Amino acid sequence: MSNLTISADRLAGRIEELGRLGRDEQGRLVRVATSDMDRLGRDRFVGWLQEAGLDVAVDRIGNIFGIWQDDTNAGQPPVMLGSHIDTVIDAGIYDGCYGVLAGLEAIESLKEAGFAPARPIVVAAFTNEEGVRYAPDMMGSLVFAGGRNLEEALAAIGTDGSVLGKELERIGYAGQHQPGFLKPYAYVELHVEQGPVLEREGIAIGAVENLQGISWQRIVIDGVANHAGTTPMSMRQDAGVAAARVISFLADRASASPTPTVATVGTIAFEPNAINVIPSRATFTIDLRDPDEMHLREEEMALAAFIDELAASAGVTVHAESLARFEPVTFDARIVSLIEEGARAAGLSCRRMTSGAGHDAQMIARIAPSAMIFVPSRGGISHNPAEFTAAVHLAAGANILLGVAARLAAD
Amino acid sequence: MSNLTISADRLAGRIEELGRLGRDEQGRLVRVATSDMDRLGRDRFVGWLQEAGLDVAVDRIGNIFGIWQDDTNAGQPPVMLGSHIDTVIDAGIYDGCYGVLAGLEAIESLKEAGFAPARPIVVAAFTNEEGVRYAPDMMGSLVFAGGRNLEEALAAIGTDGSVLGKELERIGYAGQHQPGFLKPYAYVELHVEQGPVLEREGIAIGAVENLQGISWQRIVIDGVANHAGTTPMSMRQDAGVAAARVISFLADRASASPTPTVATVGTIAFEPNAINVIPSRATFTIDLRDPDEMHLREEEMALAAFIDELAASAGVTVHAESLARFEPVTFDARIVSLIEEGARAAGLSCRRMTSGAGHDAQMIARIAPSAMIFVPSRGGISHNPAEFTAAVHLAAGANILLGVAARLAAD
Ligand SMILES: NC(=O)NCCC(=O)O
Ligand SMILES: NC(=O)NCCC(=O)O
Repeated sequence: MSNLTISADRLAGRIEELGRLGRDEQGRLVRVATSDMDRLGRDRFVGWLQEAGLDVAVDRIGNIFGIWQDDTNAGQPPVMLGSHIDTVIDAGIYDGCYGVLAGLEAIESLKEAGFAPARPIVVAAFTNEEGVRYAPDMMGSLVFAGGRNLEEALAAIGTDGSVLGKELERIGYAGQHQPGFLKPYAYVELHVEQGPVLEREGIAIGAVENLQGISWQRIVIDGVANHAGTTPMSMRQDAGVAAARVISFLADRASASPTPTVATVGTIAFEPNAINVIPSRATFTIDLRDPDEMHLREEEMALAAFIDELAASAGVTVHAESLARFEPVTFDARIVSLIEEGARAAGLSCRRMTSGAGHDAQMIARIAPSAMIFVPSRGGISHNPAEFTAAVHLAAGANILLGVAARLAAD
Repeated sequence: MSNLTISADRLAGRIEELGRLGRDEQGRLVRVATSDMDRLGRDRFVGWLQEAGLDVAVDRIGNIFGIWQDDTNAGQPPVMLGSHIDTVIDAGIYDGCYGVLAGLEAIESLKEAGFAPARPIVVAAFTNEEGVRYAPDMMGSLVFAGGRNLEEALAAIGTDGSVLGKELERIGYAGQHQPGFLKPYAYVELHVEQGPVLEREGIAIGAVENLQGISWQRIVIDGVANHAGTTPMSMRQDAGVAAARVISFLADRASASPTPTVATVGTIAFEPNAINVIPSRATFTIDLRDPDEMHLREEEMALAAFIDELAASAGVTVHAESLARFEPVTFDARIVSLIEEGARAAGLSCRRMTSGAGHDAQMIARIAPSAMIFVPSRGGISHNPAEFTAAVHLAAGANILLGVAARLAAD
């Protein structure tokens, strides 16, 4: 392992700077994928890649790559580091950005120190990892890994009716490269944990050995609009009440589950959405996860059965559509070990763990040995402006990333 | 009672014509109060008043009056007929419009026949009866009856952030008259039932003797946004799940109630409204009604108690705000009897009944003897484009209105 270290100040400064870009009038960070706000972040990132003397490449799904190569190693499958810089609505500043900027930081530090890797090292920022505007999440890395047809992905319709491909063109990030034009030798992603485990156990580094399965669905319930004052309870076909039954069912079932299943309804809309009109339609999304594919399938089946019963008993019709479905992923054992070794060498506490969030590493694992490094998230809070990781943890994680990257690039 | 009758064709033609005005791109009838669409309806109505030779007056809350008076009766407290022409979102064409256009029809028919009333007869179209854009509902008639301060009502903020007074000015219906400038001798409102009773019992005319109490609230639940994948169920403060609990509680309790309580959640919004973010906030409205004031209060108290418990058990904070609160109203016994007599004389079946919907008559009852006439609604459907009442029922109801108006105007 290398004894080189990253510049903690430069890394922290960039995270702060990127976190100021893409704020709405209320001050919320809303760099949702391929928006004008996302463009601001992308432009700044590309500027940093250029300042660092890296080759910049953008592929047709808008993934951005900063490539460090020279005559001695060009053409070798590269070590890839990365994550994403798109955000959720009202996001924190670490989710994704930390991994991307730490990747750049690792490369810059190695470059500045005169390190001579046997392979190129690449930092990647993948498009639409969050999936809040376009489903599925991890779209850029999924397309890059060949898991989804490019044209289909470019045709994705956003929550605001926009078309992803058109938006990429509009913001100037519809690149020329074919997704997958780089064949990674290995992929390492550093990320804030976004959960409570590391903080609770007082551990500095998570060596992520697997990642739970994700099932996203959009549910549309159709009932009958009628007058809120004149329609007896027994004569109602209330789409809103039916939606509430589904939300309660999911929360109760996941809470009672012996497995670590989680279920979330994050979005909802009623139609016509008027105070004295029984909702004729309720549209909402379900995010269901479990580290065990069998359990995840059981949850999906229980939900489907509940919905069937509800449709019959509540006089509504229910349409369910899958927006994303990813099986649990097991990461590469050697890279996980390299992370542990790096932590041990640096005198940092470390544990193996599962990722509750979806990550680009989950997609790149289809085409290259991959693993992830986690650092603690204060209070386990993420997807919230209160998301926070202390500078000492940020620097520690980035140093482990640098070490693992240097080791892999020496192969 | 008069033996005169209205022109069924003219009435039906005007209902159809008004129903074509104020449609959105999807063809939905959306003449919500003081919108551009509402202006279209108002302008057409004022045109008909002028064609009928009535004096047109608009008051400061935008209520429109068509006044039939002459030298022999001017200055006498008038008989007032009326309802509203604003609509819900995706409305039917009868709710409100029928009562207004039948009022005009009754006046025109009496006038054409040379009837000489001892008092003026006035047709009124009250502002914002539906209450979907601005709370409370029945706002124009409430202000007219002195039940709400004019300036407060003009300052009402709409669901779209608009200000009612500014919108009235914008559409040209901020009139000069002080609300209450007319002191009605009596008020009669004809309306489609909007419920299932008359159709189910095969009865042509409802003599409405009372009207249930209405309680509208806006509920804001604040929880904590967090990651849908990484946050264990036991650590969540999910505002959306808490909202679902309230919706289920209301539906279960109202359904099980021995009283005819109805409870509806017609509007909802989550924040940040992203698929993989636990909702930090849920905002929704509650429409609670009961014909018995004691029961209505019990329902309100049960809801408040449930909310208190929920706040404690779900780790959320809940803020409830009253948007409208009207006690049940008993109508004038003499006018109810006149309606029954009119139906009997016309050979029409008739029953006394309660109104499930709120109506302008409920407000005008504060300042003048008032009552209502109902005609059947097919399938009990209202606040829905499928709302329908057959032409024969429309004509029958309007003839009863004409007879009762003539009788009262002879006093
Ligand atoms: N890391 C992260 O928050 N990814 C977003 C995708 C998801 O897990 O919902
Ligand atoms: N008649 C009618 O639909 N009025 C609207 C007010 C209400 O009852 O919600």
